[in-house]
Amino acid sequence: MKKVVLAYSGGLDTSFCVKYLGEEKGMEVHSVLVDTGGFSDEEIADIEKKAYELGVKSHHTSRVADKYYQDCIKYLVFGNVLKNNTYPLSVSAERIFQAVAVAEYAKSIDATAIAHGSTGAGNDQVRFDMAFRTIVPNAEIITPIRDMKLSREAEIDFLKSKGVVREWHKSTYSINQGLWGTSVGGKETLNSYDNLPESAFPNPRTESGEKEIKLSFVKGELKGVDGETFENPVDAIRKLHLLATPYGIGRDMHVGDTIIGIKGRVGFEAAAPLITIKAHHLLEKHVLTKWQQYWKQNQAEWYGIQLHEGQFNDPVMRDMEAFFESTQAHVTGDVRVKLAPYRFELLGIKSDYDLMSDVFGSYGEMNNAWSGDDVRGFSKIASNQVMIYETVKERANKK
Amino acid sequence: MKKVVLAYSGGLDTSFCVKYLGEEKGMEVHSVLVDTGGFSDEEIADIEKKAYELGVKSHHTSRVADKYYQDCIKYLVFGNVLKNNTYPLSVSAERIFQAVAVAEYAKSIDATAIAHGSTGAGNDQVRFDMAFRTIVPNAEIITPIRDMKLSREAEIDFLKSKGVVREWHKSTYSINQGLWGTSVGGKETLNSYDNLPESAFPNPRTESGEKEIKLSFVKGELKGVDGETFENPVDAIRKLHLLATPYGIGRDMHVGDTIIGIKGRVGFEAAAPLITIKAHHLLEKHVLTKWQQYWKQNQAEWYGIQLHEGQFNDPVMRDMEAFFESTQAHVTGDVRVKLAPYRFELLGIKSDYDLMSDVFGSYGEMNNAWSGDDVRGFSKIASNQVMIYETVKERANKK
Amino acid sequence: MKKVVLAYSGGLDTSFCVKYLGEEKGMEVHSVLVDTGGFSDEEIADIEKKAYELGVKSHHTSRVADKYYQDCIKYLVFGNVLKNNTYPLSVSAERIFQAVAVAEYAKSIDATAIAHGSTGAGNDQVRFDMAFRTIVPNAEIITPIRDMKLSREAEIDFLKSKGVVREWHKSTYSINQGLWGTSVGGKETLNSYDNLPESAFPNPRTESGEKEIKLSFVKGELKGVDGETFENPVDAIRKLHLLATPYGIGRDMHVGDTIIGIKGRVGFEAAAPLITIKAHHLLEKHVLTKWQQYWKQNQAEWYGIQLHEGQFNDPVMRDMEAFFESTQAHVTGDVRVKLAPYRFELLGIKSDYDLMSDVFGSYGEMNNAWSGDDVRGFSKIASNQVMIYETVKERANKK
Amino acid sequence: MKKVVLAYSGGLDTSFCVKYLGEEKGMEVHSVLVDTGGFSDEEIADIEKKAYELGVKSHHTSRVADKYYQDCIKYLVFGNVLKNNTYPLSVSAERIFQAVAVAEYAKSIDATAIAHGSTGAGNDQVRFDMAFRTIVPNAEIITPIRDMKLSREAEIDFLKSKGVVREWHKSTYSINQGLWGTSVGGKETLNSYDNLPESAFPNPRTESGEKEIKLSFVKGELKGVDGETFENPVDAIRKLHLLATPYGIGRDMHVGDTIIGIKGRVGFEAAAPLITIKAHHLLEKHVLTKWQQYWKQNQAEWYGIQLHEGQFNDPVMRDMEAFFESTQAHVTGDVRVKLAPYRFELLGIKSDYDLMSDVFGSYGEMNNAWSGDDVRGFSKIASNQVMIYETVKERANKK
Repeated sequence: MKKVVLAYSGGLDTSFCVKYLGEEKGMEVHSVLVDTGGFSDEEIADIEKKAYELGVKSHHTSRVADKYYQDCIKYLVFGNVLKNNTYPLSVSAERIFQAVAVAEYAKSIDATAIAHGSTGAGNDQVRFDMAFRTIVPNAEIITPIRDMKLSREAEIDFLKSKGVVREWHKSTYSINQGLWGTSVGGKETLNSYDNLPESAFPNPRTESGEKEIKLSFVKGELKGVDGETFENPVDAIRKLHLLATPYGIGRDMHVGDTIIGIKGRVGFEAAAPLITIKAHHLLEKHVLTKWQQYWKQNQAEWYGIQLHEGQFNDPVMRDMEAFFESTQAHVTGDVRVKLAPYRFELLGIKSDYDLMSDVFGSYGEMNNAWSGDDVRGFSKIASNQVMIYETVKERANKK
Repeated sequence: MKKVVLAYSGGLDTSFCVKYLGEEKGMEVHSVLVDTGGFSDEEIADIEKKAYELGVKSHHTSRVADKYYQDCIKYLVFGNVLKNNTYPLSVSAERIFQAVAVAEYAKSIDATAIAHGSTGAGNDQVRFDMAFRTIVPNAEIITPIRDMKLSREAEIDFLKSKGVVREWHKSTYSINQGLWGTSVGGKETLNSYDNLPESAFPNPRTESGEKEIKLSFVKGELKGVDGETFENPVDAIRKLHLLATPYGIGRDMHVGDTIIGIKGRVGFEAAAPLITIKAHHLLEKHVLTKWQQYWKQNQAEWYGIQLHEGQFNDPVMRDMEAFFESTQAHVTGDVRVKLAPYRFELLGIKSDYDLMSDVFGSYGEMNNAWSGDDVRGFSKIASNQVMIYETVKERANKK
Repeated sequence: MKKVVLAYSGGLDTSFCVKYLGEEKGMEVHSVLVDTGGFSDEEIADIEKKAYELGVKSHHTSRVADKYYQDCIKYLVFGNVLKNNTYPLSVSAERIFQAVAVAEYAKSIDATAIAHGSTGAGNDQVRFDMAFRTIVPNAEIITPIRDMKLSREAEIDFLKSKGVVREWHKSTYSINQGLWGTSVGGKETLNSYDNLPESAFPNPRTESGEKEIKLSFVKGELKGVDGETFENPVDAIRKLHLLATPYGIGRDMHVGDTIIGIKGRVGFEAAAPLITIKAHHLLEKHVLTKWQQYWKQNQAEWYGIQLHEGQFNDPVMRDMEAFFESTQAHVTGDVRVKLAPYRFELLGIKSDYDLMSDVFGSYGEMNNAWSGDDVRGFSKIASNQVMIYETVKERANKK
Repeated sequence: MKKVVLAYSGGLDTSFCVKYLGEEKGMEVHSVLVDTGGFSDEEIADIEKKAYELGVKSHHTSRVADKYYQDCIKYLVFGNVLKNNTYPLSVSAERIFQAVAVAEYAKSIDATAIAHGSTGAGNDQVRFDMAFRTIVPNAEIITPIRDMKLSREAEIDFLKSKGVVREWHKSTYSINQGLWGTSVGGKETLNSYDNLPESAFPNPRTESGEKEIKLSFVKGELKGVDGETFENPVDAIRKLHLLATPYGIGRDMHVGDTIIGIKGRVGFEAAAPLITIKAHHLLEKHVLTKWQQYWKQNQAEWYGIQLHEGQFNDPVMRDMEAFFESTQAHVTGDVRVKLAPYRFELLGIKSDYDLMSDVFGSYGEMNNAWSGDDVRGFSKIASNQVMIYETVKERANKK
């Protein structure tokens, strides 16, 4: 009997897969739910219960929120990674960690097949395919929804025929809530012109005043929020999420290139990721040198693209993480942030490693460490090449 | 008699220079005011009048707003250039065009010396020095304020002793208004912790509602604002400035590396530049390929740094402009923007060149141009190298 | 009757395709031979004759050597493009131009299908597939050899069964001769350890002395070789090939990443490409600014990868070509080259645009345009940031 | 009495400095010789003796060859760093380590001044200035030769007047021999056209046959040469130097941009550095992924420029070193190299981490891990964006 591990979420598509693989294909189905920080304990128990009701041989919950933070989110903060300068990769990052966790589970129980419920239309199929193939190269990859191009109705009918009668919720928007942000797709996001209505966002704005908070970073990691200190940055992110989301902060629309080459558009709300990244970035502007910032940005751009496209396992990602880690040695300090409806402001920072130090005088005021004459010499030498270029060009063109 | 061209603004420092160079040093002073779009006709006439009162041999007004747009701002839009992902280079760009215009004027009248009134503390001295040296390499560069490290009081006293008695306005903040934004420096910006109060910004927020406008771009240039079409993008920028500034949009703080290596912090308000760049960027996300966007961003980052640091005359800047120009062929279309107090939202776009086209189906829905099997093959091949890497590594490590 | 355009070379695989598509599949076969500069008129006529003998409905020869140079080789020279710092992309570049030419011919005659004879093992199949799909997206792509995984013997037997009896040359090495170099694959190149014997290279070394020649470039293009001037750089390249190849110059082994993710190794001999590129590069070191060189190199690296991988039609390639074109304005001058057995030396250059000009003094000798004091000031300012960094770090670490 | 540390080499310029600073300026002179691996014990003892004869208060020899390797050369190998694709930075790298060692010595003995004997014409002055200022920011930097623009004759006369009569060797070429190569400047290198004669190179070519050797790398470091294994890569480099230099290998001319903005040209011979780097690079082509190679190259280019320009102490260099280190985990294996007069060939490699593995089949031959159909799907998806781009463009242009 073929032993298949199925990435299972409790939704219609993966429920169909359990029944289809188990009863139509005669496989031994082992379902896995991967929790990257978005599920409550009740939800996890409920999903497990439903899996067994559908007839899985075994069900496993892989809790990887901390690993997700340590191996991925941490570097997204270090790199200030926003895809297309906008999107914190909320879904992309999470999906890859789910795919990796499923594949590693399949490897651990020697499954000969591995299945996911993605359709043939989006990015997720590629992320699952690639992680599966990299980690369990010899396992057969099974994708019933993609292969059979089934409609919702057909899936529901099939499940009914197998005695599974449930309320399969069909909303206007497809929503994915996770530790690093919530995505909202559907209706308006399917064209280029319309914008999402306020009601499309799952977390309503309820705050209307302003509030100043302080974020504390230690070597680039968020460790304090509004007076509270956290051992685990995952908890700091959660606290910040609770504080900032009621302001409607961090809502935007991402327009980007999907892995399969077409353009995609998706709304998101990600108050905690955006505030964390922007506050971290401001702190870096004070403590890093010009070229540290330049090269961080350069590599982070790439890191985000590769992560998005499912290339997280390329060893170049580990090399870049070593680079990022090295840059964070002094990214320690506090950032003042003002929360307001639909927006936030960065007010200022405080850090022992602040290079905008008054040791040698402030910008715009004279100091004792160099003179106007030094700058004159600097300007002269720094313009040498272009000056020579212009002179040589003029002489050559006269010939 | 030494013929000196002086970059003249009508302020205390350059007024001092006129008198000092003319009467103490016995030079023939030719003052130049460079208008990059920030002066009214009245201001220009007034500055000219004052120059002659101070005793310049001649005064010249160089009107370069259009040239400034054509040779610089246009490319800042093409490249979506924001220094440190924040600052539209409002002052940096302007100062360089002023320096270049002064140097070219000096060249045209065969001046043997060229002077600026910058102190020895900031970026501007370097920008003037470098442009002067590149364009008129044989002219002596004279910088009385920098060389003598004079205080305001000393300058005022000197001018009084020469019979010049004026109100020399001394405000808390040093403000520079221009076509591409207004900078605000002083007091709070001199440390890392404090933020500018609302009152520091010269243009008060007066609007409190919301308003949707449409921006139209043609080959990357802003040609339409809120229903009005403009031949000259400079006029479109001005219209947008008038529309958006009363919302308090585009205020922020730039923290960056000065040319002389210390950190600097400056507030700014730049509603029109920020809205233009962000709307342009959104349109590009729809009409450019992934790699066009990647490489634009890459070069624009550099372009901004070099411009900021006075290296505008390096021919690599012309090469990059050729690149940018080439990328804009299809950046034509409309962008919907919502203005609101202190913020704006990009709502959507419309373009004939939108690659998020429905010709082959939408993202998230199946289409006819490729199948799930094609994606399966893609994922397989696209993961080949990392899969081989993992397999080889595992085998080698077992040895 | 289905009208299929077949990329035809006269070899076994594409001969099989003619018969198979025409007689087994009942299609109307239109063969196309694309000459990128590697065929003689006799060879072209012979291939045409053979095509008709095999029963094609029509045969067309697409002569694209000049276009190949203008649209591709020219930029490979401008960019000094050597894949993995070694390989001039001899085959990669050529194959793409062949694929594009075939696709454009298919479009011009409204073919509904388009075929190539590549196997499923290498890069060429991807290059053909991608060019076909981009240029004639609605045409069916037919690949009999890949689909049926036929052995040489099976193909020969099939052809015999159709009455085609020829000598199908089977050599130890697979050799591809073209305008931009000759590739040599087989036997030793199939592993990582062995090197090609001298006899594997099709052009034997016959020269044993040394010879100095002069190459002349005009705006980056090779226009003169050893005293002879050429209107068309293609002829200059051919002359250089004839001069340098007998020295055994330009032989090397390329190890690289194939499009399908595995490593590949191929020998090549490319005297003219290597000498042209290296001489051009030396000239650039004299006439371009530091940052022009840096950014050229940066983009050329990418340009080579994309070209290699069949992404020539991405518009970012046109944008980069605009950049390259802009950089070449002053790349005009002569380069002295010494040819010797298996190697060449670049001896020196002469150019009106040489920035190593004596206008301001030579390197290592003092000059009048700046003083030691200027350099002292430069060093001071240029070390400011790191000096501040060290000072702040020391102070913070003491806390 | 002012305590000055002087970078002392025993040559004319620094001998002048000892006498001048000690007797004319009344300072307490502490001379330091920094040995980066280029001096024999006899030379070191001789230089010390001469220093005391000239009257230094103390003389110190800083032996930093191992540190120079560990902190710098190692990374130049990891990064395959060749400035302008040619020059192993023989002098640049060494000079910076000398400057740093001198500055650290000055710091350790609390010197209030620090001196070097560079002229005002080259790169070295900047390297010394910058390292001094970064490491001992409060020490006065004294540069008598640069400041007084003295001729050789004037220096010799001054020394004679102080009773110092020596043979000051004046050769046609200025030669700098070090662990990482030998530079040769003068006469022909002062213009762009001439090349160095064979006799200008200090190590004559004496070998005329061919010889195959094997180089062994462990995690990117050279550990074995021609059958001999070394604990310390410095010894491996020395062995390779002795083996390869008699072939006249690694001679070339570097044309580059000096720190002060003018072009410079210098000959060099660097057999060991070039063979090491090229062999290391070949091994990497087999064991690294495509993007590891791409990003290594990208950063190495920058690393070389910054090192060359004296910016070694910028923390971004440490971050890049962390990246390089991470990439070398699998760069372990043997490289076959053929030495021949004036050239060498890389013949092949052997490594457990070779990704050109036969696990899944060889390039150019079919394999079992994917099919032609997979590649067809890959090509389709990989061309999606450009295909859509072309289709949309065509439709838009028809409007």
